[in-house]
Amino acid sequence: MQRHSLILDQPFTFEAGGQIPRLELVYHTSPRAYRPGDRVIWICHALTASSDAEDWWPGIVGPGKVFDTERDFVVCVNILGSPYGSSGPAAIDPVTGQPWLLRFPEVTIRDFVQASILVRKHLGIGQIDLLAGASTGGFQVLEWCVMEPDVIRRAAIIATDARVTPYLTAYDTAQRMALEADPSFFEACSLDGGKDGLRCARAIAMISYRSYEGYNQTQYETDTDTLFADRCASYQRHQGLKLAKRFDAYSYACLVHACESNNLGRGRGGVEAALASIRAHCAVVCISSDSLFPPQMMRPLAAAIPAATYHEISSAFGHDGFLLENEQLSTIFTSLCKS
Amino acid sequence: MQRHSLILDQPFTFEAGGQIPRLELVYHTSPRAYRPGDRVIWICHALTASSDAEDWWPGIVGPGKVFDTERDFVVCVNILGSPYGSSGPAAIDPVTGQPWLLRFPEVTIRDFVQASILVRKHLGIGQIDLLAGASTGGFQVLEWCVMEPDVIRRAAIIATDARVTPYLTAYDTAQRMALEADPSFFEACSLDGGKDGLRCARAIAMISYRSYEGYNQTQYETDTDTLFADRCASYQRHQGLKLAKRFDAYSYACLVHACESNNLGRGRGGVEAALASIRAHCAVVCISSDSLFPPQMMRPLAAAIPAATYHEISSAFGHDGFLLENEQLSTIFTSLCKS
Repeated sequence: MQRHSLILDQPFTFEAGGQIPRLELVYHTSPRAYRPGDRVIWICHALTASSDAEDWWPGIVGPGKVFDTERDFVVCVNILGSPYGSSGPAAIDPVTGQPWLLRFPEVTIRDFVQASILVRKHLGIGQIDLLAGASTGGFQVLEWCVMEPDVIRRAAIIATDARVTPYLTAYDTAQRMALEADPSFFEACSLDGGKDGLRCARAIAMISYRSYEGYNQTQYETDTDTLFADRCASYQRHQGLKLAKRFDAYSYACLVHACESNNLGRGRGGVEAALASIRAHCAVVCISSDSLFPPQMMRPLAAAIPAATYHEISSAFGHDGFLLENEQLSTIFTSLCKS
Repeated sequence: MQRHSLILDQPFTFEAGGQIPRLELVYHTSPRAYRPGDRVIWICHALTASSDAEDWWPGIVGPGKVFDTERDFVVCVNILGSPYGSSGPAAIDPVTGQPWLLRFPEVTIRDFVQASILVRKHLGIGQIDLLAGASTGGFQVLEWCVMEPDVIRRAAIIATDARVTPYLTAYDTAQRMALEADPSFFEACSLDGGKDGLRCARAIAMISYRSYEGYNQTQYETDTDTLFADRCASYQRHQGLKLAKRFDAYSYACLVHACESNNLGRGRGGVEAALASIRAHCAVVCISSDSLFPPQMMRPLAAAIPAATYHEISSAFGHDGFLLENEQLSTIFTSLCKS
């Protein structure tokens, strides 16, 4: 995919009331210009991903894949608050010349979608043939279906929810507390602040992304006589370190907080009413072992959308199944495109 | 129950090789002396509990309860490493006159049981009619059944496992990383060190103790139009604060680390062989929604013990069900006592 940047040299006001003097949005598209009549596939990315969907979803996006970057016009916008190019805590505040860090305004899921709509209009795209997103990406897909019902023809709503649950909030809060336990998060003047807290936050999040079975299948200690087993402990620490190398604590805090705003029903008479207003043909996709967005929640979610089919992906890998179960996802996407 | 203290003025050597010059063990019993012929109920407590079982298990332990402190001789020993009186990081190192903190030796599950055996011998108890424990308490029950097969007649093995799983290690490691993210954990010279990390660690642990449904049932945000819901966030922070008031980070780190040593099969030819050597009549009790010790693991655990029955408690409250589902537990204990 090809990287682009859209700079809007005017103030952007966030849903929660904050404002920044100018807005930068980084996005990736198929490596050619948009032509009216193109089949438009729009991907909303999850928490710590980037707009380079071919990079983080290689089994789904690329030449010859189900989201074919040669045949289709594929778009993905880097979410506000992310460190991968769009405006956020890691970007430079033009007033101070320093990164925003903790002074970046509160961001919501609806802000993510407002930013994507700016890119859509900039590209001259009037209709999205298929809008797809998992996890935080799915929050955006649902919002966008409600915000622009005339634009979204089909939607793949994957491993996600229409409203933040207490269980997700419990994870988000524990992660926030990890960031806060590291005083450098508050004291630092650079993106290096809060790295110990960030490593811990990622280790917490990993538990929610995987499953009991998934951990057992991949991290079981084979040495039975060690006094203190450390295979899975090393894995957790490694995952924390890996994220801390590519992300910063301020962007992470901003994005985790944004997830807490997820509520499709806010100001719309509740979640049920908002879901009932969706006009897109939807595939609601649940991963059987997903502890964050389990079948008992996603089945009724699908039932509340007028034109939705429910699909359950069989996987032992929990929430992260959306990054792994490419064959099952491709089949669902292919069938949705025919609807 | 009545509090006692046993002080052994000689060095105690831990399984991992560390040594302390003297050992203190705090324990609670029925409020009278042990008389040969008494029915002995021995309770092993979980991670952050104390030896006052009547206090933390009031639906099960007390006058007229299934573990009747008037009729039976009930005993519970505070585990090594705990801040509730037994030797541990919060106790005074007699050499320095200061709390041990990070200098306290590594403790294992087998050390917990060795300490309990010292109390058993001190009391002159030759046979335990019923040994019961949940979670970390269950680790001890299993170990004790293998270490003293002639002493344990019956055992209630509740919400627990014979060997630490990668999933539990993932939680334990995230908690350890939370403690480490707070530099005061390493820098402090008193029990006040590491309190921010401890609060976070507890918030992480709460997720593992509850369930998706449990959080939904008790912490659902009723205000549908708030931009950032905070009911469950407050709950998580409150739980962290509550533990930080009654516990210290050093004891917590020591006990979480001890859980990582849980492996009934170590040095015994593996877990299967160790379970097969158990001679006690056992009730293996699983809580249906327990994410740490789920039915698919506890059912085969029961099957591997020669004289065991498997019981599944129906509860939406996850692992913490062992503190809440008193009626179902009492029925199981009553039936076990008749075996």
